[in-house]
Order: sequence, then C-alpha cells, then structure tokens
Amino acid sequence: MIITDIGIIGAGPTGLFAVFEAGLLKMHCHLIDSLPQAGGQLSEIYPQKPIYDIPGYPTVNAQELVDKLSEQIAPFHPGYTLGERVETLQKQDDGTWLIGTNEGTEINCKVVVVAGGLGCFEPRKPEVDRLAEFEGKGVMYAVRNPEVFRDRNIVIAGGGDSALDWTIFLANVANRVTLVHRGDTFRGAPDAAEKVAELARTGAIDLVLKSRVVVLDGAGHLEQVTLTGHDNQTRHIQADNFIPLFGLSPKLGPIEDWGLNIDKSAIKVNTVDYSTNIDGIFAIGDINTYPGKLKLILCGFHEAALMAQSAFKYVYPDQRLTFKYTTVYGITELA
Amino acid sequence: MIITDIGIIGAGPTGLFAVFEAGLLKMHCHLIDSLPQAGGQLSEIYPQKPIYDIPGYPTVNAQELVDKLSEQIAPFHPGYTLGERVETLQKQDDGTWLIGTNEGTEINCKVVVVAGGLGCFEPRKPEVDRLAEFEGKGVMYAVRNPEVFRDRNIVIAGGGDSALDWTIFLANVANRVTLVHRGDTFRGAPDAAEKVAELARTGAIDLVLKSRVVVLDGAGHLEQVTLTGHDNQTRHIQADNFIPLFGLSPKLGPIEDWGLNIDKSAIKVNTVDYSTNIDGIFAIGDINTYPGKLKLILCGFHEAALMAQSAFKYVYPDQRLTFKYTTVYGITELA
Repeated sequence: MIITDIGIIGAGPTGLFAVFEAGLLKMHCHLIDSLPQAGGQLSEIYPQKPIYDIPGYPTVNAQELVDKLSEQIAPFHPGYTLGERVETLQKQDDGTWLIGTNEGTEINCKVVVVAGGLGCFEPRKPEVDRLAEFEGKGVMYAVRNPEVFRDRNIVIAGGGDSALDWTIFLANVANRVTLVHRGDTFRGAPDAAEKVAELARTGAIDLVLKSRVVVLDGAGHLEQVTLTGHDNQTRHIQADNFIPLFGLSPKLGPIEDWGLNIDKSAIKVNTVDYSTNIDGIFAIGDINTYPGKLKLILCGFHEAALMAQSAFKYVYPDQRLTFKYTTVYGITELA
Repeated sequence: MIITDIGIIGAGPTGLFAVFEAGLLKMHCHLIDSLPQAGGQLSEIYPQKPIYDIPGYPTVNAQELVDKLSEQIAPFHPGYTLGERVETLQKQDDGTWLIGTNEGTEINCKVVVVAGGLGCFEPRKPEVDRLAEFEGKGVMYAVRNPEVFRDRNIVIAGGGDSALDWTIFLANVANRVTLVHRGDTFRGAPDAAEKVAELARTGAIDLVLKSRVVVLDGAGHLEQVTLTGHDNQTRHIQADNFIPLFGLSPKLGPIEDWGLNIDKSAIKVNTVDYSTNIDGIFAIGDINTYPGKLKLILCGFHEAALMAQSAFKYVYPDQRLTFKYTTVYGITELA
C-alpha cells in the first residue's frame, strides 16, 4: 500500500502543478492516472499542438508544457501510478482515505484531490445493432496488439487518423481489411488518406465510402457485418472483427458514485479553497464547476494553489501555515 | 484623449496578462503605470531574482517573465502610458470612464481594471523633526537629476544600495557629501560598501555611522541637519540638501477615494468575475481581496481570465460570447 499526504486523481497539468503547491507546504503527493503517461489531454490528445494562453509562454507545445511541469515538481518527488484507473474511494476509521485502482493498487492518503480533467476517456461507440453483444467477441474499440488480427477478416469504421493509420498497418497483417466511412473525404492526414486510396485502387483493401455499419451477426462470435450505403443499398461482409474508431469521449466514471455534488458531469466546489461537499476531498481543474468557471489550464493552476493552503490546514490542523514567496525563499526539496 | 475598451491601471504581470485575455475577446486595452516601465514589482524591485512558482517555469527571472508576457500580448497592440500616476476616475454621462493622470493624460474607456499590485510605491520617510516642512526645500527622496546637487553640501541617509551608490556618484558632483547610517555595516553590495569606506578613508566624503538624523533647520530652505549618535552625542552639519534613501513603500493612493469597498488596503471583489462594488470596475492581482486570496502572480492570471469574460458582457451586452480554446483556434491579432 502506498502512503502519502495527498492522493491526486489525474496527472494532467493541474494535477501536476498541485504537487508543486503542496510541496511548497511540505506535503507529499501521489498521482494516479488511467493514461499510461503524465500530462492528461495534453500528452494524450494533442502533444504537438501549440498552446497560446499559458501566461508567460507566447506559445508552447502541449508536451513541452507537461515536460516543464514535470521538471518543476521533480524536487518534491511525487509518486506516480499510471495506466491504472481509480475505481474506489473509501474513508478509513482513522479519517484517512483509501484510493483503489482497477489493478488493485491502494493509495492511503489524508487528502484526496480530484484533478480528473474531463474524466476517463472512453471510446465513442457508433449506433450499430447488437454492438454491445459482440464486445469482446469480435468488436474492439482500439488496436492494442495488431497480431490478434493476423489472417483475420476485419472491418474498420471511421474517417479520422486512427481509422486510416490502422487500415494501412493492418493491410499487411490481416487476411482482408475493409474500411467503411460515412463520407467520401477523410478528416485524417492527407498523405494517409492518399495511401488508403492507393491500397483500395490496387485491391489490397476494400474501401466502402458513403456507408455505415448497421448490424452485426454471428453465433457467439462475430461473423458478419452489414452495411447500408447512402443509396440505401445493403451489403454483407464476412468479418471476424469489427473495429469502430470514432475517437474517445470523456466520462466521469466511478467518481460519480462517491457522494460528491455533481452538476453536469462536473464536481461542485466552493471558490475559497476548491473543496467539495465531502471533508478532505478537493476538486481542481476542468473536472470542477463553480460560478464563473472557465475550463482553462491557467485556472487549474490557481485552484491548485488555493486548494493546497486548505489541504495543509486539513492535514496539519495544529500547525501554523507560513506563507512564503519563492522569490524570497526559493524552494526546498522534499526528502 | 486616449479611447479604448479597457483601461488597466497597473502594468505588472497581472495587468499585462489581462491584455491577452481581453484580446482573445477582441477588446483593446490601455495600460497606465506610475513606474517608467512595464512589469510592476518584477521589473522595479527584483528584475534579476528567479521566481520558482510560475506554472510551467521551473525557474524564470522576474524580468524575463515580464518580457515574455509583453511578447505574448504584443499581437493585441495595447497602449501604454508609463511614468504617470493615475489620480482621478470619473464616470461620464455616456456610462464610460475617464481616467486622469498626474501629467494630465486622459484615457476614456468602457471598463476599468485596477491591477495596481501593492499600489503606488512611495518613498519610506524617516522620523525626522521638520522633515515635511523642508520637502521641496532641500529634502528629496530620490535623485532624478544629479546636477542639481553640483557644488552643494548634501547629507544622504540610509544603508542600502541606493544610499551607497548615490554617495559614490555624488562624491564627484557635490561640494561635500555626508553619509549617515544607523548601523556600522551596510545592507548594500559589498563592493559598494568597500568603495564608500575608501572614500571616507581618503577624506573625499564624510561617513557617520551609528547615527541618525533627528532634526532639520533653516530659514525657508534647508540649512542644517542635526544628527544624534548611539552615544547620544549631537552633531550639526551645514547642508543644502537632505536625501533620505530608505526604500519604497506601497500605498493605495488616490484609488482609496473612488468609492470602492476597501479592506486593509485591498479592494474587495467577488470571485465570479473579480468585479468590485462599482459597475464597470474590476480589480485583479495583489490589489484585490476575497476569501482564500493569495497574493501570487498565478492567481492574478486566473483573475484576469474570469474578469475578461465579464468585461466582455459589460462592453458588449448584446453580443454572444463564444468561448474558444487557443489550442483549437490559435489567436487572432487585433487591428
């Protein structure tokens, strides 16, 4: 079991900076994130995109900002549990909290800070008859190990980068790849779209445009995918796997069941210290809501600073908090 | 008369970043500051000091941060009135505001943002009998034009860098310089202290340690300065000028008389949009106060962002505000 002062759920920019503000007050933190690396949306969704509204950075790439934040908090030696999804939160008899992940990791902490951004990212599912029935039986929302598709007949659906890139890659792995796309132009990178068109021209893949998958069939495991075109023509394709790649959509997940006041998928907090309705639980960054709330990274930084002051008083009710400016005293590494 | 959307009183980091947040919403800004350059305390008091708590900067020199902020807001072409002190604020018949400075500059704006930091910096005055009486008649709190001291007898008081540096410089200008210091060691740079000691040794100046100025005398203009030593010995020095250099101390100044709710030299605001009790006037950064307030630069940034949203609705009550992320749309330069 991991023991720390503050368990931070979410290792995006706000969660990372919370380590810094807590560290200035000599509190240790442990970060937990379902993504396999720190940085949240910045690293996962748009690492190479420039951001223009980080104060003091006329422009900064998302991943560069994450790297700088990680460097900034390194002196405070935060713990990291990455690639694990927080499932449970239980108050212990001694007043501390126990955070549990889907992998069984347990983090014991005095204060819980939910910095979960938009929540966990889950695959966006298309409306297809019997889709849920074949999940794990031929339907997959992501390609983790391409080898499972070797010599299989697969149908990929989507028009973005993921659909294009996996079509190109799996053309050399699977027995037969069919790419189904609603439109007739792709949102993905032009050179990838060009490659897919070339594969279709040479007969290496089947490309079905202006069509969508409407129903799945099979006895136990997926066997057949049925498409309908814009012309209402129906077509059946023998398929072992159906891989819809329509991006990820955020979900609050298990956090919804912890008794927190939730308003439109966000946790209600007060702006004095970004505390929630439950003593010892704070919520900062995109996951919280209050009058005037803006989902900006720079707002998460402010929220982290005010939260840390209050968390300190919660963790050390008997100690006096001395507020120090880093310009005057610098920072002191935590042991 | 300068006409703009938002008049920002104070060109410190918070005032500068307010230009950015306003600019994203297509509002023009004009910055006014009593200091001769942008940057507030950062540029004036500790330009070379490293700051450690700017999110995304493991360390940044104060002046470098100011330079980056200035670069970040340049596309929005803010106006600057520097080296002038805001004296008056008047509501016009058309609902706009008129800001007036001590130099007679007038700025007409729809919204006023007070980002005045700790207020104006005024010289810290020592307790000396008849000091106020000789202000402008021999007593000066800063050296603006050293030539006014040519061939004069002057007494400088203080133990910091300013006192040392001006003693060294004016030794070659004045007829006679006397430096009076309470202690027997200096707070200023060691090499400056060494130079002053050397000037005293060679008789180029008079150095009076462990002493303080207690009373001024003269008929109309300053003629004599009286010192008392730690040994209670009294000493009279003929002097045309007395220059006490004990640093600057912040004062809220004329802002106190505008009808704003003030609490302990800070302007009370609500945290929804950092608006004050007066419609159309906002206060952000170190000059405001609210429950949980921390005087941190990063908090001023957050306050600027929320203020800008509300200011937009005040300036354009009929326009719909569309919130955009810079990662998606970038920024658009203002004409």
